[in-house]
Formats: sequence, structure tokens, C-alpha cells
Amino acid sequence: MSAKLNSKYVSSFVTDEEILSYQEKITKAHNDLHSKTGAGNDFLGWIDLPVDYDKDEFQRIKKAADKIKSDSEVLVVIGIGGSYLGARAVIEFIGGQNYNDLREGTPAIYFAGNSISPSYLSDILSICKKKDFSINVISKSGTTTEPAIAFRVFRELLEEKYGKEEAAKRTYVTTDRARGTLKALSDKEGYETFVVPDDVGGRYSVLTAVGLLPIAAAGIDIDALMAGAAKARAELMDTDINKNDCYKYVAIRNALYNKGKSTEMYVSYEPSFTLMNEWLKQLYGESEGKDGKGLFPASAIFSTDLHSLGQYIQEGERILFETVVTFAEPKDEIYIKEDAENADSLNFLAGKPMTFVNEKAFQGTILAHNDGGVPNIVIENEKMDEDSLPISNASLSA
Amino acid sequence: MSAKLNSKYVSSFVTDEEILSYQEKITKAHNDLHSKTGAGNDFLGWIDLPVDYDKDEFQRIKKAADKIKSDSEVLVVIGIGGSYLGARAVIEFIGGQNYNDLREGTPAIYFAGNSISPSYLSDILSICKKKDFSINVISKSGTTTEPAIAFRVFRELLEEKYGKEEAAKRTYVTTDRARGTLKALSDKEGYETFVVPDDVGGRYSVLTAVGLLPIAAAGIDIDALMAGAAKARAELMDTDINKNDCYKYVAIRNALYNKGKSTEMYVSYEPSFTLMNEWLKQLYGESEGKDGKGLFPASAIFSTDLHSLGQYIQEGERILFETVVTFAEPKDEIYIKEDAENADSLNFLAGKPMTFVNEKAFQGTILAHNDGGVPNIVIENEKMDEDSLPISNASLSA
Repeated sequence: MSAKLNSKYVSSFVTDEEILSYQEKITKAHNDLHSKTGAGNDFLGWIDLPVDYDKDEFQRIKKAADKIKSDSEVLVVIGIGGSYLGARAVIEFIGGQNYNDLREGTPAIYFAGNSISPSYLSDILSICKKKDFSINVISKSGTTTEPAIAFRVFRELLEEKYGKEEAAKRTYVTTDRARGTLKALSDKEGYETFVVPDDVGGRYSVLTAVGLLPIAAAGIDIDALMAGAAKARAELMDTDINKNDCYKYVAIRNALYNKGKSTEMYVSYEPSFTLMNEWLKQLYGESEGKDGKGLFPASAIFSTDLHSLGQYIQEGERILFETVVTFAEPKDEIYIKEDAENADSLNFLAGKPMTFVNEKAFQGTILAHNDGGVPNIVIENEKMDEDSLPISNASLSA
Repeated sequence: MSAKLNSKYVSSFVTDEEILSYQEKITKAHNDLHSKTGAGNDFLGWIDLPVDYDKDEFQRIKKAADKIKSDSEVLVVIGIGGSYLGARAVIEFIGGQNYNDLREGTPAIYFAGNSISPSYLSDILSICKKKDFSINVISKSGTTTEPAIAFRVFRELLEEKYGKEEAAKRTYVTTDRARGTLKALSDKEGYETFVVPDDVGGRYSVLTAVGLLPIAAAGIDIDALMAGAAKARAELMDTDINKNDCYKYVAIRNALYNKGKSTEMYVSYEPSFTLMNEWLKQLYGESEGKDGKGLFPASAIFSTDLHSLGQYIQEGERILFETVVTFAEPKDEIYIKEDAENADSLNFLAGKPMTFVNEKAFQGTILAHNDGGVPNIVIENEKMDEDSLPISNASLSA
């Protein structure tokens, strides 16, 4: 954090009064959530995860990540849905989409068991045949088809390659604390196990071992991640819409939905946000798609998708609003240089950072989309790092 | 080809009569297209590209690709929108999402100039600093901001690394035949140039040098690609809806749109189809998003996205239909083995190929979604290769 909501670009679509009319509902939802009294109250452990987690296991996670870094060029993370998207979203956001090519001292990470495509699986298998690798299989029950098939395949390769004993040391299992066939198998084979807590739903489990082990193996600072989430949690405790950007966001998107906007498009100007978008789709789609209702969650990365979806956003059916997540500081900056030829006529930008141009593109686009009848909610972040990752924000609003 | 349309899973939503009611409009559109008399008739070169293309340039493309393979570990492809999506879609579909890790004798391929993110660009720059690389910059005018900035950056690195003369030999430019600043610069600097034809719109340009050079550099058989497209073109010449699956698809999706389905979701069970989906979004979104109308193009990869969007598809707003692209044969097969432990209870699948399970998942899902009120159009393909790539099909329907 601290992510800030900018509601300027919805102001001509939704009035302050309309936003505030959700106060009562929001106060009730807040109280239900925090007193754990509403429907689904068995699965509210995620609310307190940033401050209330198993510190011993947290240390074990860091130790396991260190061992993986020391003995593996590849970590295969086997999981689907909530046991897949969060970790991948964080790793790609912090490490970039080309993390596997840029890492230093950490393993390449491949995600398997999230489809039933043999073409996809055999590609990853080919890679592992030539490298030292470990696996982290993540499944509460151990019987979900996709990860179960992938686990069979990689377990066989591990045992073939390293023998049963060493293979067991390269197998990390994140599963139920006590029940389930995967837990039983792990105890029998001597796999190190981590816990999917009973009170945390799959899609909210990124701050448990489910997300933290792969994230830590990728060299990301999980202490900073937890601290950022704890800060966000503290900042988002107020029930007052005017003092809580998370609830203000909730009110605005509901107001837009009730005015006939059927589709929310998550937008970022950073390609590394692509998987965060996918994860947001899960967080919202699974939470809201019920009883024939709910905002349809879509996503785009600009400016690239302006050259594909831009036309539709500007001139297609007026069913869209956008939620744009911005970052003031890039991970790395590039300055545009003077060019003697100036064939592209861009010398007027010489000396300027690319971030300046990206920001101008954002400003121009948002005005054009607003003019075209598309409301834009903007969530402004400072840095692209562990601290500012808008995880808690997203979770709390879902 | 030959892709086949299966309309069984729309039959309870759209009658044969409704489908056939589009015959007149389709016949007119067909005649306008093929006689090149309708609006936008200056940009219909794509229709005949599979049979009417510059054979000399085609040979030059293959030669350039061979040179790149022989002297470059990395090819940076600089382009946005139509100068980006098609090539990337084909390379990832045929080579897989992990092509860069699996290639043998061909360069790793990175796509730049499709955003203004300095974080993204500097990652690719870091990779190129350590490897022998070439660049292919694709821009009709040479002044589009995103590729122009990226070209400045990589041109500088090339000249720094190899000197001006050798850098020029590693710079391949795809641009206007005669006009434009990029063409002028190329002639001055001695870059080899390829042509973006005047009569082919950006998003349809994959079968010109725009797509063919990067695709050939990735080791994909562009002769087979052109032959497959020519076959598809010949098969899709009939105006009769009942004899032309492409037109039948057009009729069905229009009928669904006119019945209140606002969103078409492209679905595949192959992760390597992800970028094909993105390209389809461009093909349709740019063609249809006009005058406050048009189907909103969305996409999903199953089974992974069943664990995120599945709930919404099944139970959310009834605004969706799906267009599922299937492949009967995988690129590689994996057989599920007997496991002594059978902890996952999957031994009943022992001896079966994963394709069998993927197919069952598809069948179960389509029935469930149909029951939930979601029509499904199915486009059935045989193989995941150059020949069956449904490029022409997609283009012709857009």
C-alpha cells in the first residue's frame, strides 16, 4: 500500500450521493466480515492472515525456499485455481514476465497441473529432464484431476532421476493440515508438508504457504509482502466510505453495475500485471457470478490492447467500465535519447523518461474513454514492489 | 484446415430458420468482399494473400530467417497491434508458450514496442546485452510511438555492441513499400526491408512479411502455413450457409447477439492458444466495435479458467456465449500410468492418454454450460500445426 482511489473519472457517471447510498450495506458487510457472523463465515481467515499466521511455518517456508534455490535450477509448481493464480501473479508482477530468463540465484519457475493439455505438460517435462528440479504440489484434497495427473508425471520423473529418497527431499507438498490423501501420502513418503488452512478459501490463500513458498523460492521478500498486507489491512478498517478507498471502490462499482454496466475491465499499463489481472478475474468472478447476476470480469494491458480492444472500448456497446491500476514509479527507468536522424520525429521527447510517456498515454486514453461514455476508476500505487502490491485491497473488495 | 463447425450446442438457443435468415446478408457481404466493391475495399488484399503474394520476397524472408538462425540467439520483434499479435499467436501456438526454453537451432524471440513500460523494455534489454541478437522492426509509418521508442533503444544497443555496419546487417525492417520515414531511414542505413502491403489492414497482415519473418525465424514452416491458408480459402468460397462453416459461424454469432448475448468468449483447452485468443479479440473487437454496437470479445483457457471464471459462466449474468476451438490430436501425448499408492484415486484412468481426459473435461463442461443457459459454438480442428491453424477462418469471419 498505500493504494489510493481516484474517482475523478467516474464523477460524470455516478454522483457522490449515489456512492454514499451504499453506506448502510457496506457497514453491515464490514461488521459481518469482521465479527465473522455472515454467510460463509467459516472461510474468513484471510482477513487476519497478514497479522495472524503460523510464524514457525513461515520460517520453514523460507528455509525450504533456500534449499530449493541451492539445489534446483527449476521449481515446478503444481496447482490450479487458487493454488496457482496468486503465486504466479505475484512472481510475474515483481519478477517480470521474463523472470525465468533474468533470475540470478533462484530457480526458473514453471506452473503445471493447471490444465489437462498433454502438449503443455510435455513441454515442461522436457525442460525438467535436462535440469535439476524440485516440485511443489498444492492441493487441499489431493484428488483434483489436473494437479493429480501432473503430480503423477513429475513424481515419476523425480524418482527416475534422483531415486526415491532424494526425490522425496525435492517434493514439497502444500495440503490439508491433517486430512486428505495427499497428506497421508506425504507422511508415508516423508515429503515436507505445508498447510492450506481450513478457514481460508482457495482464491484468498496467496498469503499462506500456498502462495508464499513459490513466491519465496523466486527470491521475493515475503516479510515485506506480509508487512505490506498488514499495513493495507490496518488502513482499510474504517467503515466510512469517505475514509476507506476499498469500500468507496465497492460502492462505485456496484453503482455502475446498477446503471447497466455489465462488464468491468481491469486495466494496467504494465505487462507484468497480466497475471494480476487474471487473478482479479478469479477473485471477482468467483465471488460475484451467482444467481444470474454479477459484473463480468475482463482485462486488458495498455497500450498494447488499445491496438486491439481500443476501438471496441471507444465505440462498441456501452456496457463497460474500466478499473485502471497505475504505478507512479517503474521498476527500471529508460530515458529517451536524442537521435541525429529523428526519422520517427520523437526528438521532442529526448531526455524524458519512458514513464513520462506512459503517463501521458494513460491521461490521453482516460479522457478519450470518458468522452466515449466509459467510466474509469483509478487505483493509484507508488511502486511495483512487495510493499505496494495491492493484494489486500483486492481481496477486501471481493 | 479443415476446421469444422459443430452447432449442436447452440441448437436449443438458435433455430435453423434463424440461422438461414442471414443468407441474403451473407451473400451480399461475400460478393462485396470478393468483387471488392463494399466499404473499405482498399484493404481487401488479405482475401487473396494465400494464393497471391510476392514469391521473391517470400524467398528473401526464408533467407533472412536462416541468417537470423545462424547468427542470433535472440530475435527482438518490435511492433504493436497488427504488427505484433499475429506472429506471436502463431509462434506460441505452434512452438508452445515455453518456445524460448525449448527451441533448438532457432533464436529466442522477444516482443518489444507493444507497450510504453520501461520496466518491460529494460528486462528485454538486459537479456540482449548478454546474447547475440537481431531485431525486426515492423511499422508501416515508422512513427507509431511504442515501436519507435523501442527501435531507438535496441538500435543504440546494436550499434554499441556490433558497430554501425554489422548492426545494419542485424536490422530487418518491415514497412511501407516506398513511403514513410522508416523506409527512408532503412535505405540510408542499408537495412534489409520487407513490405507491409498497402491493401492489407494491420490485423490481417500475418501472412505478409509482418508475420512471416518472425514466424520463419522461429523455425515454423511458412510454406505449410501458406498452403493451409490457401486450402482454407478454397474451402470457404461457397456463399451457401449450409456449405460454408465460416458463414454459418457468422450467422450463429449474429443471431446470438441479436438475442441479447453481449459477450463472446473464445475458449480453448490448450494453453498455447492464449495468444490466438488475444489475436481473435483484436480481429473481432476492431472489426465490430462501432456505432455503440458489437459483441464484446473475451477469452478463456480451460480447464484453468474454469477455476476462476467457471462460476461466473455457470451462474452469472446470462450475457455470454462461448466459441470453443478444439484440437483432436495433441502436439505430444502423455499416458497416465498405474500408481501403486493410488492416493489420488486416478488409477481408473491408467493407460489412458491425457487427451482422453481433456476431451472428457470438454464434454462435461459444454453440457453443464449449456444447461446453465450458455450457448456453445464449437470449431473442431484436427492437429495443432501449420496446416490446421485456423487463421483464414478467423479472418474471413471477422
